[in-house]
Amino acid sequence: MKKLINDPSSVVRDALIGIAAAHPELRIDHENRIIYRGDTPKKGKVGLISGGGSGHEPLHGGFVGYGMLDAACAGEVFTSPTPDQMLEATKQVDGGAGVLHIVKNYTGDVLNFEMAAELAASETGVAVESVVTNDDVAVQDSLWTAGRRGVGVTVLLEKIVGAAAEAGQDLAQIAALARRINESGRSMGMALTSCTVPAAGKPTFDLPEGEMELGVGIHGEPGRTRVPTGTARDIAAQLVDPILRDLDFVGSPVIVMLNGMGGTPLLELYLMFGEVAAILNRSGVTVARNLVGNYITSLEMTGCSVTVLKTDNDMLKLWDAPVNTAGLRWGA
Amino acid sequence: MKKLINDPSSVVRDALIGIAAAHPELRIDHENRIIYRGDTPKKGKVGLISGGGSGHEPLHGGFVGYGMLDAACAGEVFTSPTPDQMLEATKQVDGGAGVLHIVKNYTGDVLNFEMAAELAASETGVAVESVVTNDDVAVQDSLWTAGRRGVGVTVLLEKIVGAAAEAGQDLAQIAALARRINESGRSMGMALTSCTVPAAGKPTFDLPEGEMELGVGIHGEPGRTRVPTGTARDIAAQLVDPILRDLDFVGSPVIVMLNGMGGTPLLELYLMFGEVAAILNRSGVTVARNLVGNYITSLEMTGCSVTVLKTDNDMLKLWDAPVNTAGLRWGA
Repeated sequence: MKKLINDPSSVVRDALIGIAAAHPELRIDHENRIIYRGDTPKKGKVGLISGGGSGHEPLHGGFVGYGMLDAACAGEVFTSPTPDQMLEATKQVDGGAGVLHIVKNYTGDVLNFEMAAELAASETGVAVESVVTNDDVAVQDSLWTAGRRGVGVTVLLEKIVGAAAEAGQDLAQIAALARRINESGRSMGMALTSCTVPAAGKPTFDLPEGEMELGVGIHGEPGRTRVPTGTARDIAAQLVDPILRDLDFVGSPVIVMLNGMGGTPLLELYLMFGEVAAILNRSGVTVARNLVGNYITSLEMTGCSVTVLKTDNDMLKLWDAPVNTAGLRWGA
Repeated sequence: MKKLINDPSSVVRDALIGIAAAHPELRIDHENRIIYRGDTPKKGKVGLISGGGSGHEPLHGGFVGYGMLDAACAGEVFTSPTPDQMLEATKQVDGGAGVLHIVKNYTGDVLNFEMAAELAASETGVAVESVVTNDDVAVQDSLWTAGRRGVGVTVLLEKIVGAAAEAGQDLAQIAALARRINESGRSMGMALTSCTVPAAGKPTFDLPEGEMELGVGIHGEPGRTRVPTGTARDIAAQLVDPILRDLDFVGSPVIVMLNGMGGTPLLELYLMFGEVAAILNRSGVTVARNLVGNYITSLEMTGCSVTVLKTDNDMLKLWDAPVNTAGLRWGA
């Protein structure tokens, strides 16, 4: 295993020290491993928190800031944060208007966020709503989930509800918007190579030359099928077709994210986006906005995922609103 | 070789199609492989162009836009663009105030930009100045250069002179500023693994488990020495010490870039930044600004580089000025 770390047991702690050094505008609670906006809580604004295992950066810590999250709880690599972390973050970000928990559908995350919400209700009286994302069309159930996994839509959701919270929408409106976004988005990913969890010290899976994992999860968990690698054009079709079969995107403007798994060159991600955009155009789907880059990663895995989100003019306005985070920044 | 491409011979062409689809605000000349700002030439503004081999994205094409470059010429992977491309870009971006060529010190780039500048003088009368960056302290001469290689300082230089051009400085001022930035910055990189050039089909070099290439170049060319891997803390010292020995940074605010080579997880880059910042603090160097992420890459190589740039208040103001490009964006 070759990694730029000091010790497998201190990766997350040490990375948080680096994040604190790089981003003085954020407030880092090193003990509880929570990344906060410097100005949270904002009186009257709904607080937005998310969190999950580390190793998916910039998700979620890189999306803390104006127009997006108030806080992100960092678990160990590919391991859910604890209910205590989530409860602490919930208390800290409440500005009197309640808090939304944004949870990717993995069993550990879902259980721990549920427990945190119950504790918040009984201990603090903070109003909490939750949305669980489950946009991955690859598999129905998986190693780590009952039901579909939550992946790329989470990024787009955090941006859009972040803007809604900034605009003063209330908790019920924001929770409804969040659920509508999740229902309107679909994702599918693939891997050319595995990642290596520092504590494990060896690749999560073996993927021989000439093969790829279609529908891979963001922890390297198995996808739909292992198939021969192909051209970028073939791979784009294998990612986009299942998405288009799962939901009708024709007639609405869509946001497309071509996401790198962490180890793929940006040159290849743009090349893939060209292929994906061509398929969508031929299918009559209108690409209104896009993101190309590393947004929800799996350590150094090579591969990519496609997320397509059906929107409307109101959602696009929220998408275009200013955002100022380490991982996503415009118009601010 | 596992890559998200259609064919090794069409990688750059296909990626430019993707860039055009993702960034309607840019203008892409597919025949000449040049990425332009949509609004270039701007009357009275000095035009800024750069270019080089592809495979280092977001450099340079990702830095085309408001507050940074007017155009970037894309060569084949790790291969200089041609004088014809550079000449065409020079003509297109001239708004009557002349054009600055920003050139990384590699023999092919330097010769071709020189020829383009001569052609521009004889054919068009456009005033051209050139700056050649050579900030890499790793080696004195190398496979591909006479003298030091140009690396990370190029990113910081493009941002700062981009702001100066936007502010209306003239060609002589901007060329002098560019040279001062190059003289004030130093870089050092390392690799844990090789990259694979698509046309070659196999890794550029072999790097066994337990070893790293210290002072590696951005094309995978050899560095100072091959040494055992160590902790992030050790590696940070091996990168920062040669930089601090080469130039005195004490007493001036510095900009630090912790750059990923393309395949390194962001979690590790932040961890490394924490170690680098700690060393600089202990050495009495004041880190005023920073960048952490993939800015000048080597395809999917894992590893990182450190760039330290000595600045002053004027330079920091130009750094902080709005920029709006795919690869760097704030305050705009």
